[in-house]
Amino acid sequence: MEGRERVVIESITPQIDCGRYPVKRVVGDELVVEADIFSDGHDEVAGVLLYRQQHEKGWQEVPLSRLENDRWQGSFTLSELGSYHYTILGWVDHFLTWQKDLKKRHAAGQDIAVDILIGVQHIERAAELAGPELAEKLHETAQALAHAPNRQRAVAIGLAPQLSTTISGCCARDLATRYPDELCVTVDRERAVFSSWYELFPRSCGRDRRHGSFKDVQSLLPELAELGFDVLYLPPIHPIGMTKRKGRANAANAEPGDPGSPWAIGSPEGGHKAVHPELGTLEEFRELVREAGKKGMEIALDIAFQCSPDHPYLAEHPEWFLWRPDGTVQYAENPPKKYQDIVPFNFETASWRELWEELRSVLFFWMDQGVRIFRVDNPHTKPFPLWEWLIREAKQRSPEVLFLAEAFTRQKLMFRLAKLGFDQSYTYFTWRNSKQELVDYLEELTRGAAREFLRPNFWPNTPDILNQYLQVGGRPAFIVRLVLAATLSSNYGIYGPVYDLCLAAAEPASEEYQHAEKYQLQEWDRDAPGNLKAVIAALNRVRRENPALQRTNNVAFYPAEDDGVLFYGKSTPDGSNTVLGLVNLDPFHAKQVRIQVPLEELGIKPGQSYLVQDLLNGDHFIWQGAWNSILLDPAQTPARLFRIRSWLRRERDFDYYL
Amino acid sequence: MEGRERVVIESITPQIDCGRYPVKRVVGDELVVEADIFSDGHDEVAGVLLYRQQHEKGWQEVPLSRLENDRWQGSFTLSELGSYHYTILGWVDHFLTWQKDLKKRHAAGQDIAVDILIGVQHIERAAELAGPELAEKLHETAQALAHAPNRQRAVAIGLAPQLSTTISGCCARDLATRYPDELCVTVDRERAVFSSWYELFPRSCGRDRRHGSFKDVQSLLPELAELGFDVLYLPPIHPIGMTKRKGRANAANAEPGDPGSPWAIGSPEGGHKAVHPELGTLEEFRELVREAGKKGMEIALDIAFQCSPDHPYLAEHPEWFLWRPDGTVQYAENPPKKYQDIVPFNFETASWRELWEELRSVLFFWMDQGVRIFRVDNPHTKPFPLWEWLIREAKQRSPEVLFLAEAFTRQKLMFRLAKLGFDQSYTYFTWRNSKQELVDYLEELTRGAAREFLRPNFWPNTPDILNQYLQVGGRPAFIVRLVLAATLSSNYGIYGPVYDLCLAAAEPASEEYQHAEKYQLQEWDRDAPGNLKAVIAALNRVRRENPALQRTNNVAFYPAEDDGVLFYGKSTPDGSNTVLGLVNLDPFHAKQVRIQVPLEELGIKPGQSYLVQDLLNGDHFIWQGAWNSILLDPAQTPARLFRIRSWLRRERDFDYYL
Repeated sequence: MEGRERVVIESITPQIDCGRYPVKRVVGDELVVEADIFSDGHDEVAGVLLYRQQHEKGWQEVPLSRLENDRWQGSFTLSELGSYHYTILGWVDHFLTWQKDLKKRHAAGQDIAVDILIGVQHIERAAELAGPELAEKLHETAQALAHAPNRQRAVAIGLAPQLSTTISGCCARDLATRYPDELCVTVDRERAVFSSWYELFPRSCGRDRRHGSFKDVQSLLPELAELGFDVLYLPPIHPIGMTKRKGRANAANAEPGDPGSPWAIGSPEGGHKAVHPELGTLEEFRELVREAGKKGMEIALDIAFQCSPDHPYLAEHPEWFLWRPDGTVQYAENPPKKYQDIVPFNFETASWRELWEELRSVLFFWMDQGVRIFRVDNPHTKPFPLWEWLIREAKQRSPEVLFLAEAFTRQKLMFRLAKLGFDQSYTYFTWRNSKQELVDYLEELTRGAAREFLRPNFWPNTPDILNQYLQVGGRPAFIVRLVLAATLSSNYGIYGPVYDLCLAAAEPASEEYQHAEKYQLQEWDRDAPGNLKAVIAALNRVRRENPALQRTNNVAFYPAEDDGVLFYGKSTPDGSNTVLGLVNLDPFHAKQVRIQVPLEELGIKPGQSYLVQDLLNGDHFIWQGAWNSILLDPAQTPARLFRIRSWLRRERDFDYYL
Repeated sequence: MEGRERVVIESITPQIDCGRYPVKRVVGDELVVEADIFSDGHDEVAGVLLYRQQHEKGWQEVPLSRLENDRWQGSFTLSELGSYHYTILGWVDHFLTWQKDLKKRHAAGQDIAVDILIGVQHIERAAELAGPELAEKLHETAQALAHAPNRQRAVAIGLAPQLSTTISGCCARDLATRYPDELCVTVDRERAVFSSWYELFPRSCGRDRRHGSFKDVQSLLPELAELGFDVLYLPPIHPIGMTKRKGRANAANAEPGDPGSPWAIGSPEGGHKAVHPELGTLEEFRELVREAGKKGMEIALDIAFQCSPDHPYLAEHPEWFLWRPDGTVQYAENPPKKYQDIVPFNFETASWRELWEELRSVLFFWMDQGVRIFRVDNPHTKPFPLWEWLIREAKQRSPEVLFLAEAFTRQKLMFRLAKLGFDQSYTYFTWRNSKQELVDYLEELTRGAAREFLRPNFWPNTPDILNQYLQVGGRPAFIVRLVLAATLSSNYGIYGPVYDLCLAAAEPASEEYQHAEKYQLQEWDRDAPGNLKAVIAALNRVRRENPALQRTNNVAFYPAEDDGVLFYGKSTPDGSNTVLGLVNLDPFHAKQVRIQVPLEELGIKPGQSYLVQDLLNGDHFIWQGAWNSILLDPAQTPARLFRIRSWLRRERDFDYYL
């Protein structure tokens, strides 16, 4: 134990669960690190932020600057994919202390002769520890100080800032304290935090009631790219079991011709590494991935680690499943509900290592086909250690790979999945519809601990969830939820074309879609009247053109004098880009609402006019002052996205287009 | 890595800084431990709280019960002084899961034949893992279940609670997850959390202007015991240096006869292990300690690890000090202020180990004289690792020893000292005088993280601090601050007799006492008119008779319709004892104030009459309903302490005295 290490380092942020899990950032982010650093007594402390990439041995360092109340801050840029480690080094800086004290004594007119001698000693001691070139300079300075002709000169030499910087850098750190742990940050690519998802069922993309294929999907790529999506997510593309196949509308038994649920994976034609024969071939899938890439899009696959009763695994590896005393395999259950078309793995099998390795090989197989994004089905029903290992293995193989957790479950499980590695997470967004619900939920996600490890992905609908708001609200409701999802969260997705077409028919007293595409083929007229394509395209364009919308943690809420109107905004850290969102949550009735624009945040003086442009709808307003009144008519403009420009110099009255 | 450990354990409380420091309790406390415990999927989890005393090898266990939202709770009683370790073990309980599922299937009328067979398998498997006697019982139960004559009987056997308890206890824990760290709790004696301190200068206890002695202090013991104090704290009792001795009122130089500051320790007559010759002998000190003990009181000594320029250490161990280039020793400074009667240790000396050992020997020396409480002077100007080590060494030698930190400094330093081992801490209480200041500060201390490691000790005055409120407020102000200190905090102290005598003369524009006892002898007439002895005695009696006042974290604030009136209360956990405090913070003006009594907390129905007794002043009230009006006249009753009794059955109208 070194009892002379006087500096204390505490409360380093950001940090998750005592450093058990890494925080999340994307490439190009600046990681801002803070810590409490202090010592006993009055001496000055100083410190540096140490950081290194995972594979590097030596540390880089950045000086820490003092905030208030013993809090210090430093930052460094995360320029590479992968992991960085960081920690803090702090020490008592005797020379800085000497300078601080000299300044006070000099100002108080006290005799400083001995203090000057002490300063000379400090500098000479530093010279002993420094390299030869620096040592010579320091020795010169010490001599100059010792022989300074008068007090003024001595003080000037002694208080030179570069002198303390020099000594601090080279020779002040004996007895430094290093924080005992190394913290970690995972750096992903930009798409981890900014992505626009479109989900569709390939088998419904066929024409003339034919089972759709990868080629059909491929023909849709231009349109989807124009709409502005960058991730095309497909439900499982594997062969579907026949035994206990579900029929239409979740009927316990399928009729001939019913296609079954894509999540009931596996048949004699293959399992998790095979392609459903009616979708096409593996080569055609690879082509789809390539063609999507040319249009700036990625294919995301569904990872559903479960089997139909016909999956080859059951015969090849019966030890990976639970068998009932009557000799049948244990199917999925949540008593009293039974899901007999699904057989879960038994992760407590003694052969768990082989099972894990097979599942990893499934993941790697699809990565080899070019897939870099996976949406994981119900990860909360598989062991957490499995995901932590799988995600780490996958990212080691390819640091660009991303995982979205579809875990509609209790919050602590959702948070744990995010902590252990899932890059994005579905959330409770579908059940947050009122103003208070939205504000509370966004504040929880963006101001609480989760902001460091959970990246929300907001979906207004999924194949399992058509919420009541959409069921009754009509087209305006679909626009409202779309705008909320796509602007409150930088990651969002819609399940189409049912969303684009504002289809709102649900099973009675349920959030299940009627004629659910999970259980039957559909055929969609993507251009049917009332479709949302124009809105979607405009929205995705606004997202692409406004960096403020490419983050989630930066959302803030502003006053709107109506409990049914949400007013919020996002800005980039430097304030150069701001978008404000204004949404009438009532899909039936127009509202004239007063809102308070955050003038100070926008750098607008109270008396100043400013130009407000609705990026979604195109219209303009000229406002002055914070409080303004505006009409939100669901039939015309249920939601508005504002960009604000200060009014320029009076000579340039018509400078709308910058 | 065991990938089959499915249970997750997170967020164990109480915990300080990721388990770096122990939480604090006293003997007899129940330590309530909580944790988030969950698994993937729908299986039931179960867990136990493991605990052991520091010296024990094996764990004891207590079952955890489920709260809501995946939070679990357990507790155990801290019956011994010293340290305990605790942690959590959690596992998936398959038999509990089977029971839960069977119940649902049975209720839904489903066929349960195979489920019964599965249950038999579970029980037989448990029998394999159990001891021989239990195995036989389990085997019998399995058989009974397998051959149950009908469904009802089978379900009854299968759902028997003792069956799951048995299996859970003996055989369910393969693949259990144990939280990777052991947390720690330090258990001190009751006096750590409940103590009433009186500080006096022995040298001012003499008669006829004579320098007081331990014998003089001894003669005061009966009175102090009657007043109800249990700790008598003495400023340093060591020889005082002559060189640069401070004169009266902090004069830079002493006149002949000036006694100097007791904190300028050391002279040719000895240092930290010696007794100031005018105070008496070591034997007389030991006698004082013994006699105090017979009256239920303890002597607390002042640990001031610093020296006068005359301390023997300077000649014996010059290497323990910093020497200036002019050959003089570096005295204490906080530029531009100089404290030339004090020489601090240089804790960065290469001989730091020897210095630490000497300081430990000082502590042990006084412990050998019978001292078990130490008030440490300015610990924040000595290295934190020193205190962590010293306190640990002292408590290992004697678990009853207690340390009070006098660290009026920045909050993070104060908190660190508390975390690393100080049992009690001075606080910012002297500078918290308004209602809002008091409420905010108490909430910070009792609701924040500090509640687990910092035990406040509230002093309305110290030899260095006579705050403005007391300077101007007169006798009522002294009563107000006394009641606040002694009822908001279970540890409190006063520096007397200046406090008992309501002496309020300060240096101009300063919090320093005029004619400060630090620098000159005084002689007090303890019975002078206006003294607070009766109030003090009453207050200490109320504290002793009401367990609710023997804790600090239990304080709550209640509405009083006046920003100058504070209304608060404390209860024991079982609600059997409650004391409410009502204080007029204005020492000059009477106030008629409406207060809202917390009826529900007290178990009083809204229409019910209740008897209110002022424990301090003796008067009674009969109230009904929450809102009541009461007069607080500084001249009569600036503060009231209420105990409330429900009105008993109407037949017993005059049952005041229970």
